[in-house]
This record gives sequence, structure tokens and C-alpha cells, in this order.
Amino acid sequence: MFSWPVRVYWEDTDAGGIVFYANYLKFFERARTEWLRSLGIGQQQLKASTGGMFVVAQTSVRYLRPARLDDELMVTASLQQSGRASMTIEQQVLLKDTLLCEGSIRIGWVDASSMQAARIPLTIIESLRVKP
Amino acid sequence: MFSWPVRVYWEDTDAGGIVFYANYLKFFERARTEWLRSLGIGQQQLKASTGGMFVVAQTSVRYLRPARLDDELMVTASLQQSGRASMTIEQQVLLKDTLLCEGSIRIGWVDASSMQAARIPLTIIESLRVKP
Amino acid sequence: MFSWPVRVYWEDTDAGGIVFYANYLKFFERARTEWLRSLGIGQQQLKASTGGMFVVAQTSVRYLRPARLDDELMVTASLQQSGRASMTIEQQVLLKDTLLCEGSIRIGWVDASSMQAARIPLTIIESLRVKP
Amino acid sequence: MFSWPVRVYWEDTDAGGIVFYANYLKFFERARTEWLRSLGIGQQQLKASTGGMFVVAQTSVRYLRPARLDDELMVTASLQQSGRASMTIEQQVLLKDTLLCEGSIRIGWVDASSMQAARIPLTIIESLRVKP
Repeated sequence: MFSWPVRVYWEDTDAGGIVFYANYLKFFERARTEWLRSLGIGQQQLKASTGGMFVVAQTSVRYLRPARLDDELMVTASLQQSGRASMTIEQQVLLKDTLLCEGSIRIGWVDASSMQAARIPLTIIESLRVKP
Repeated sequence: MFSWPVRVYWEDTDAGGIVFYANYLKFFERARTEWLRSLGIGQQQLKASTGGMFVVAQTSVRYLRPARLDDELMVTASLQQSGRASMTIEQQVLLKDTLLCEGSIRIGWVDASSMQAARIPLTIIESLRVKP
Repeated sequence: MFSWPVRVYWEDTDAGGIVFYANYLKFFERARTEWLRSLGIGQQQLKASTGGMFVVAQTSVRYLRPARLDDELMVTASLQQSGRASMTIEQQVLLKDTLLCEGSIRIGWVDASSMQAARIPLTIIESLRVKP
Repeated sequence: MFSWPVRVYWEDTDAGGIVFYANYLKFFERARTEWLRSLGIGQQQLKASTGGMFVVAQTSVRYLRPARLDDELMVTASLQQSGRASMTIEQQVLLKDTLLCEGSIRIGWVDASSMQAARIPLTIIESLRVKP
């Protein structure tokens, strides 16, 4: 399973002394982006070549334990389901062996200028199939 | 139903030209905070007086249509369910009459120093009951 | 002088228990945006009609005292200097009568597609002159 | 000179298609934090052991060229001046050999509970002197 290290900085925390919960969505996205990059999928380049881009359609996140300043987290990404119109990615944030947070992120594809939903380009689907 | 206006600034947008999806969690929280404040519940003051604070335990968000720079959004908050250990708040982001985004946020209560789950103070429960 | 209220939410704070210093740049920008809007200058509309946009060229900020969760701040904006290529805006963040933070923000104008520097449209310059 | 890689993700960009200028302060801080860590200075641990923490007292940043989604930036940090009450760090953001942004960050030391200015602990001063 793909995983990506994320260090917690001041910018990530809030006055509760812990990572602000909205920021786990950022951590998830960094891991998804690096997972796609590891499969040869660059998002800036895709937008330039296809005129399309991924958009997040749904997020579901459970917060189990807090992360803190200086923590070195591991963030995982794995494809749970993939269709022509959207895909769902399962993700976890771990501190050593402790699960802090887990989420399910459904992503669609849109035309970048009209923001209308469109089919995910076949090259992406194929890249995802090669390395599930 | 409680609603709170939120204006979209550059800080809220991303290179897709739309509001970055993680930022809707911030918009939801601003509305929740103002809704609690309208019920006489101040979070800084609660932390000082009880030693406890709210933490987000679960979020579920559906993104229907994008918001853009300069949009003036309305964000709603209403109590869906309330127990001694947690409560669930339903929230929507609207642009005029169009629903852009909706979410369900489950919130727990913790001791701020130990981060251990605790019962929501009765004064809060009672404030919430007065104005459902 | 133009001023704009900004409430401090959890999203704005860090684990030091205070507003994260980078976020004052967001507060400054909200006030600048509303100041421009009060002069009839809408940025989304400007980008659509002229193909250009403001970009920040230089920021200088002094942090004097911290702001905290739930604080209701006032953020000011006033034009210090204005030329054809850039303008400088003086800004302050106040909590009641106490100055927390002050900054000087130099802003240029660019063509949005090429990001090349360009002259600020005359309509903007004139709007700024009417109400200094 | 110390340098630290920073990748640009969606979270860092704005609707202008470029990195939002306030976020360079985050990039600078990540590099400063890793630079301090490389000298054996951990901030979470310092706060626990000394009761004090760094706070940013002044920032001055010049934005020369924009960074974009997927860019892999290098962020430098070097000590320009160091006293008992504050230190100034010079920082740059580079894309390959191109300077995008440069800043000067003055940092003080405070007691974390009172937020009163205090002298930087000698152990920190000494760590900084060993590797300038």
C-alpha cells in the first residue's frame, strides 16, 4: 500500500494544541497526489494536456486520536473503487502503529473551464489498474 | 434555522479557480461557532471555566457545486442529534438558493489537557435544548 | 479610514494558543478586498473584464501582541502610495484600542494568463483617488 | 546553507493559479523548523522542557516570481543575526536556479503561558553558534 510521510508543523495545529481537523484533508491529498505521481500521473500536466482535473465529490473522515506538533505521520492511500465517472480512495493517518484518522475520499473528473462532470481519461484508469 | 454569511476570499480558493474543498470545513465551523455563541456558548470562555473543549469526531461532506472568489455564501447549522457524549450537526453551504455543499459533523467533548473524552457539560446541553 | 471586523476562529490559531502569524496576511487581505469592494472594485469581475489581477509584490509585517480565539478584531486599510505599476497599502489589526499587528503591503498588477507585470487599469486608479 | 524541499500541492495555490503569497511564510517556517531540528532543537520538546517558545516578531517578504502546482521548491534558512532576545533568519524559495521569493524573519522568545518576551535559552544560542 502506498504511504507518504507528513511532518506536523505549527501551521497544522490549532489552539487545542493538536492538528486542526480540516488539515487531515490536506495530508490525505498530499498522499493521493504522490500516489498518483508514483503511477506517472501529474496533475498540472494533466490539466494542461486534457483540460480536465480531479475534483473531490465526497469526504468521510473519522478522527480517533490527535496528532501534535513535530509528529512524523504516515499517510496511506489505496484505491477502493474505480469507475469511469469517479473513484474512491481509502486513506489513513498513522503515528507509528497508532491509527489517528481514517477517511474515504470520492473523486470525480471535470472539464476545468466548465466544471462539468466528465469521464476520467482512460490513461488514468489504466495507470490505476496496473498498480492497484 | 441558524445561518451565517461567509464571503469567499483569495485565501479560500485553489488553482482550480474554486473554493478548496477542505475550506468548507472552516466555513462550517465558523457557522457552528456563531450558532453556539448565539446560544450564549463561548468556546474560549468554556475552555477557561471547564477545562474542556469540543473536538470534531467525524465529518461527512458532499460537494455538489463549486463556490468561487467573491461569492457571498450562507452557511447553516442545526442540531440533528444530541447525547451526553457527542452531538451531530447538520450543515449546508448555499449560494442564494443553490445548495453547494452539505455536511454532517459529529462533535465530542474532551478534557483539554488530557484529550480524554468526557461528558458535554449540562449547561451546554440545556442551552442547545432551549433553541433546537 | 476603512476598517473591517474579523473574528478569530479555531482555524486561525496554532498550538501556541494564539493566531498563527501567517494568518494576519489573510486578515489584511480580507480588509483590502472589502475596501476595494466599497470603492466599486470587484476582483473576480475585474479578472473577467480586464484579464488582469492584483498580485502581492512585497509584505512587511510587525507582530506586537497576540490575538486569541474568539477575539473580534478590526482590520484597517489605507492607501499610502499609488503609482501606475504598483500601490502600497498600510494596514493594522486592532483589538479594541490595542494595536496587535501592522503591515505594509505592496501590490502590483499582472496579466492573469502570462503573469507579466502590467499597468494598473485607470478605472482602478481613479476609484482609489476619489476616496483616499 | 541549510535547504529543505517543499512540494506545491493544491492546498498551497489560489484562484490566480499560483501559490498564495501567505503560504510562503509556511514554507519558510517548515525550513526553519527542519534547520533547528538538524541542530538538535525540537520545538515541542523545548516547550515542554523550558515552558518557552519562539514567536515571530517581524516578517519582510519580497515576491519575485510565482510558484505553481507540482513545483518542487527548495527553501533555504540561514542565521543573519542573533542576540539574547531575538534572532533574524534570511530565507529564500528557489525553483531550480530561479529565486521566487525571499524573506527576512525576526524571531523572539516568550514564556508560553504569559506570552511575555524572555531571553532565548543559552542551549539554543550555543547550538546556533556551532553551525552558523
